[in-house]
Amino acid sequence: MVTPGDVRVEQREDPKIINPTDAIIRLTATCICGSDLWPYRGVEPADHLRMGHEYIGVVEQVGDQVKTVKPGDFVVGSFVISDNTCEICKAGFQSRCVHAEFVHGTIGTQAEKARIPQADGTLVATPGRPDEDLIPSLLAASDVLGTGWFAADAARAGPGKTVAVVGDGAVGLMAVLAAKQLGAERIIAMSRHPERQKLARFYGATDIVEQRGDNGVAKIKELTGGLGAHSVVEAVGTQESFMQAVGATRGGGHLGYVGVNYDVKIPGIELFFAGIHTLGGPAPVRRYLPDLIRLIWHRKIDPGKVFDLTLPLDQAAEGYKAMDERRAIKVLLSL
Amino acid sequence: MVTPGDVRVEQREDPKIINPTDAIIRLTATCICGSDLWPYRGVEPADHLRMGHEYIGVVEQVGDQVKTVKPGDFVVGSFVISDNTCEICKAGFQSRCVHAEFVHGTIGTQAEKARIPQADGTLVATPGRPDEDLIPSLLAASDVLGTGWFAADAARAGPGKTVAVVGDGAVGLMAVLAAKQLGAERIIAMSRHPERQKLARFYGATDIVEQRGDNGVAKIKELTGGLGAHSVVEAVGTQESFMQAVGATRGGGHLGYVGVNYDVKIPGIELFFAGIHTLGGPAPVRRYLPDLIRLIWHRKIDPGKVFDLTLPLDQAAEGYKAMDERRAIKVLLSL
Repeated sequence: MVTPGDVRVEQREDPKIINPTDAIIRLTATCICGSDLWPYRGVEPADHLRMGHEYIGVVEQVGDQVKTVKPGDFVVGSFVISDNTCEICKAGFQSRCVHAEFVHGTIGTQAEKARIPQADGTLVATPGRPDEDLIPSLLAASDVLGTGWFAADAARAGPGKTVAVVGDGAVGLMAVLAAKQLGAERIIAMSRHPERQKLARFYGATDIVEQRGDNGVAKIKELTGGLGAHSVVEAVGTQESFMQAVGATRGGGHLGYVGVNYDVKIPGIELFFAGIHTLGGPAPVRRYLPDLIRLIWHRKIDPGKVFDLTLPLDQAAEGYKAMDERRAIKVLLSL
Repeated sequence: MVTPGDVRVEQREDPKIINPTDAIIRLTATCICGSDLWPYRGVEPADHLRMGHEYIGVVEQVGDQVKTVKPGDFVVGSFVISDNTCEICKAGFQSRCVHAEFVHGTIGTQAEKARIPQADGTLVATPGRPDEDLIPSLLAASDVLGTGWFAADAARAGPGKTVAVVGDGAVGLMAVLAAKQLGAERIIAMSRHPERQKLARFYGATDIVEQRGDNGVAKIKELTGGLGAHSVVEAVGTQESFMQAVGATRGGGHLGYVGVNYDVKIPGIELFFAGIHTLGGPAPVRRYLPDLIRLIWHRKIDPGKVFDLTLPLDQAAEGYKAMDERRAIKVLLSL
């Protein structure tokens, strides 16, 4: 991305191994993330960014110290580089690894090849070469599924719980899928788009709430005996949606949030009197990858359905446009 | 409090039973809370508030439906009224009870007598009439100890953990005591007052950090191998102290906060990239009261030491002044 709104696919030199912990992968597929729209819309700086942070592909080459993946392996990687051995990684927060580095911006996986640092700690090999129909789902695991899963887990979705999901983008839909898998009793998707409501129901939503803001909060309270949801996922990232999520969480409940834009200012006193648990941040996707790959491999989940538009990589600019105009939920870029 | 800074002790009519779940108690002692200074300083509205929310005393009368306390019982109560039977209470969040009501402002326990609604759910009787020397400690349980304990628990203080406590007021000191009781390995008190540092060490602090703000964060990182503390308690409530607490928490760590003033605005993006758990709010003291009373009764803990000035109730105004000017950590008002 040269400047906001200006996405170009250009010829670059092939990446090379720099550190002995690097791997070079040839991408099988990549995609456009809702968060890619922030620089696209100029909400975040965009000055010659190397775009893309979701990726699956085949390992071409590895550095001397790489032990868990080898050339020829089909791999899924997290959108944050991690060594997976430091104290923070061991506690399950690989996105705050002491060697954390964002794939977005400098590495960029909307490309044919990419150099992935800390390959052992970032990539997970699949059991074999995947069937074609599993490609979208495995690609989803790289961020959008892992992020939705983290959000549902952070919100403590589980048996006996009512989970409300604010946001019907791909991450919100994946949080619905995760809440279902985690055993939630009731899953309320907050959405006003018929197509997305349909997908939310497919993934496990039991209720749909179309209201937003204070009205949305009131509706969630009405559906939960006046108390609010046990678990709320915030998957939009605006001031209104964040406060809607806070308001929808019952006292002592859990709010998981996975994206916040730059101007959100949380009034401390409102958060205080809400009396809730919160956990948020870039998702430690690496923690969940082995399990997610297993679920996909055995066709227990079908996250790939969030891709409703596929374009060749060289039409990336059109993909951004389609997502920006909400004509597509999520765009897969094929190679 | 008539207006900010103007505290008067006036004759009022004796409180009477209004609801069958009420109890009337004769206070044995009460005290001034750090949060009472907010209206005192005009940071919060103060228009004829009935001050005081910490209390111990003897039950004089109970409504028809009160079952767990009876006239003659010596009781400790929480600073938030709760029924202790609703779904939120059962989950341990009595300060968000569906019948929650703040003692501060309308009831007011800087008084000789008080009507306590939801007596069964709010008051806990001690095993008998306490020895004189236990009075300050039992009084502390009503808020400042219960709040500090909640903060340490919210921050997940425990074995193997490094806990940093931002704030050396009574609540911060009680959080140090709680962290020690909860088995924390290392407890870092952030304080620049020699007397309070001494008390922090008495309660279990292993390290003292005098720096504040970014320097305070840097020092905590230096003491924790660059990672930050596992558990951080925020017990001040200003913008600077809140962000100091966020910065001092390691990725995936836990921040417990128990007071936030009205102008705090948390930059969402900073909280997001911190990647931490938070839990805050008015403490559900009622959850902890039975255990705290037991620990005090058996002289396992000595929270009463936070009272470093005792005045008769009719000198309440001087007590506020002493705390406002930081001449006293916490003032006990005797009756």
